[in-house]
Amino acid sequence: MNLKQIAKDTAKTLQRYLTYQALKTVLAQLGETNPPLGIWLQNFSADKIHDGETYIEELFREKPDLALRIMTVREHIAEEITEFLPEMVRTGIQQANMEQRRQHLERITQINLSGPSLYPEQQTTSDPNNEQ
Amino acid sequence: MNLKQIAKDTAKTLQRYLTYQALKTVLAQLGETNPPLGIWLQNFSADKIHDGETYIEELFREKPDLALRIMTVREHIAEEITEFLPEMVRTGIQQANMEQRRQHLERITQINLSGPSLYPEQQTTSDPNNEQ
Repeated sequence: MNLKQIAKDTAKTLQRYLTYQALKTVLAQLGETNPPLGIWLQNFSADKIHDGETYIEELFREKPDLALRIMTVREHIAEEITEFLPEMVRTGIQQANMEQRRQHLERITQINLSGPSLYPEQQTTSDPNNEQ
Repeated sequence: MNLKQIAKDTAKTLQRYLTYQALKTVLAQLGETNPPLGIWLQNFSADKIHDGETYIEELFREKPDLALRIMTVREHIAEEITEFLPEMVRTGIQQANMEQRRQHLERITQINLSGPSLYPEQQTTSDPNNEQ
């Protein structure tokens, strides 16, 4: 397991995701202040946003103001939220793992418990030795 | 901008991504220790991994050992790398923003510089007043 490479890839993925969240924020703002520009940005971004830096570069050539705005917003989001992520993610995974184990145990236990008593009435009536 | 919601969504996205990285790690291990099981897991996961917890749940019903293994690995990855992510992501975004601004300035400057002298020979030959 190459943890250093995983950390690098995860950071890049996060950077792309925060760029997407910055776009969403700017789109919501434009929806109130300049709807036509918002629609333009939505159409422009639809199939490009997943490219991350290439997306910003292309937007810079078309509308530098919007590119600068998204860049400013993603930097702000990163400054505000990243410090909380380690604890949130660690806790989230621990809780999800516990929940998965709990559900699995429940399924196993239900199968074992329900096996013999699945049709208790049928069992008692079909077994004459059991009528006491 | 709802930073609390963005932080929650980002943590969930990270959790899904680390589950994917855990799967990749387990696939690499199985490639060496049990290739047929590796191929089975690859086929099983191909169109399900993006569901995150639902994926783990379905894998639990099919092969609990593999589900437990991926869960253990993702918890380990989270413990090892998440503390480095805030700094990596903030620095990554700051550097990317600087680089985007630099490239944009370079393009603007090139356009302004190259504008008047784009076809210097044609300009001088087509303008008879300029022959001195």
